[in-house]
Amino acid sequence: MKANTYLGPGEFGLTEKPKPTIEKPTDAVVRLVKTTICGTDLHILGGHVPACQPGTTLGHEGIGIVEEVGSAVNNFKVGDKVIISCVTACNTCYHCKRQLPSHCDDGGWILGHLIDGTQAEYVHIPRADGSLYHAPSTVSDDALVMLSDILPTSYEIGVQPSHVKPGDTVCIVGAGPIGLSALLTVQFYSPAKIIMIDLSESRLEAAKKFGATHTIVSTDLESVKAQIDDITDGHGVDISMECVGYPQTFDICQKIISIGGHISNLGVHGKPVQFDLQDLWIKNITLSTGLVNANTTELLLDVLESGKIDATQLVTHHFKLSEIDKAYEVFQNAGENNALKVIIENDITQVHK
Amino acid sequence: MKANTYLGPGEFGLTEKPKPTIEKPTDAVVRLVKTTICGTDLHILGGHVPACQPGTTLGHEGIGIVEEVGSAVNNFKVGDKVIISCVTACNTCYHCKRQLPSHCDDGGWILGHLIDGTQAEYVHIPRADGSLYHAPSTVSDDALVMLSDILPTSYEIGVQPSHVKPGDTVCIVGAGPIGLSALLTVQFYSPAKIIMIDLSESRLEAAKKFGATHTIVSTDLESVKAQIDDITDGHGVDISMECVGYPQTFDICQKIISIGGHISNLGVHGKPVQFDLQDLWIKNITLSTGLVNANTTELLLDVLESGKIDATQLVTHHFKLSEIDKAYEVFQNAGENNALKVIIENDITQVHK
Repeated sequence: MKANTYLGPGEFGLTEKPKPTIEKPTDAVVRLVKTTICGTDLHILGGHVPACQPGTTLGHEGIGIVEEVGSAVNNFKVGDKVIISCVTACNTCYHCKRQLPSHCDDGGWILGHLIDGTQAEYVHIPRADGSLYHAPSTVSDDALVMLSDILPTSYEIGVQPSHVKPGDTVCIVGAGPIGLSALLTVQFYSPAKIIMIDLSESRLEAAKKFGATHTIVSTDLESVKAQIDDITDGHGVDISMECVGYPQTFDICQKIISIGGHISNLGVHGKPVQFDLQDLWIKNITLSTGLVNANTTELLLDVLESGKIDATQLVTHHFKLSEIDKAYEVFQNAGENNALKVIIENDITQVHK
Repeated sequence: MKANTYLGPGEFGLTEKPKPTIEKPTDAVVRLVKTTICGTDLHILGGHVPACQPGTTLGHEGIGIVEEVGSAVNNFKVGDKVIISCVTACNTCYHCKRQLPSHCDDGGWILGHLIDGTQAEYVHIPRADGSLYHAPSTVSDDALVMLSDILPTSYEIGVQPSHVKPGDTVCIVGAGPIGLSALLTVQFYSPAKIIMIDLSESRLEAAKKFGATHTIVSTDLESVKAQIDDITDGHGVDISMECVGYPQTFDICQKIISIGGHISNLGVHGKPVQFDLQDLWIKNITLSTGLVNANTTELLLDVLESGKIDATQLVTHHFKLSEIDKAYEVFQNAGENNALKVIIENDITQVHK
């Protein structure tokens, strides 16, 4: 089969690999229907994720059709249409039993990282019962792909720990896919104001369509603070969400937070940040970090089925698996291409059962 | 009357001041029975709290007898025995209505900071209904003084936001009065292990009597981490509490925290800290900071009445108001004197009504 393989920093491409098979009774093999690219795939290509070895198939998101199941798989059978979660959960280990499958001792984020991922014709799924979800026909394929990672990440890591309430003022720093996904899911709780901050005016235009009430071009910190003070009568924002992963964007979040506010960190950080405890010790703030546990996948599926949010807004481009180079080119230059999520359809293995 | 007055960095002493009077209908005047010294008083003397002007009476803790009340005070009358909270609450402003009286627009921590405090014969209490609590005769005076600041601070800022559960492993960094108070109040929730870290072996001995299951002398970070790994099977602690206020002690807290853990910051910090988001972004941690709201004073009074904890353990020394210089000398050299809280009794105004 064809698989989009990480070949070392800056290098990737479709390579020929054996079709995966069942290795353990808890495994499944899934034929991909659609997959997508995540910012994390670009981190791997940048050489910043040393645990990912050259030769690994990229990708940890997608939907597909179950091709084969091991004898111990309870919830899935051949032919089932499934959502592949970015998190593999054994449901039995120390962390899974503490409701932290993101840190599963035999799973967590391993797809397209420690084991072959989803940017391929087929993918081997360990712990299928803890890693796959049934995909209803009532939700579009593109929207379903958003349930693999981006919607649960923004909801579980951005929205849930913030305890956002109706009437709150929320500021999301970074209007990329994860920030916009947070913008969608935070609206479940009816905040009064949602301020999006980004360097790109075109992304901020998109944010307005997604429901942002205010947008700020993040030129310098003082100007951002002045605009936030203006919007919040000087109180600062009840919730700030860091959706980028740089010291500068974290700094915006801590400088604009109100007394009693919450900072949700969704960004993947490569270095430490300066944390202004000399100002914040007294401010009764809370802060949260984390990797998605994907324990709200079914909840979010119910939301999508209800029509409460339209996750296909996050999809800007469509490609075929055979043209994955083009998909990466567009996603790597997301700014100039106005790209958010790019859907990649498996056009190589078009089996209709 | 006599009042212990801040005279500028490093300088203080009993000075003669007019006895306070009712200025607004919501005021009370309280004759002090007992007061104490807080680490914050030493910060003021160190010149690190510039908002506190020379001439201000120090102290924000104490119990006393109501001497006079304004016409709009509902809950207190002359002769009532009261606990004076370190936090003054108007109960009507933006922050009070959001359950954050610590940041009351017409109060918060003002006693012994922005207005004259409790280390005096009498103290003027603005917003008496929001700042005083009835003191029952069933709890000792020394224990009642611990309700002004130290017990609610440790409980509200250390324990409550940590959501500590039975069976958890808690590490408290800093075995001074606030750390030991956290050690007492965290035991409400029956954690399995409570590890105290300090530089002082004598304080750690005290911690064992207060209920610590393990103690660690904080020589170097690597040794601390190794001992924590040993105690926690390599998982780290569920909750770490920063009770000192230095970058180094914050660093211990972030380095030993488990996946899914919580860092409570109780320390008063004078400078920023390095926050290791490159390691912590993925670890699903939460962190909290804050100034006490004193909204659990009555709850803690119920606890003291029940005998569940003995707050007098926190009191190591007794002095008279007339010998307050000696009290400061002992408290300023707390380490060599094995001092925790020092009680100062008003021996100047011994009126028994």
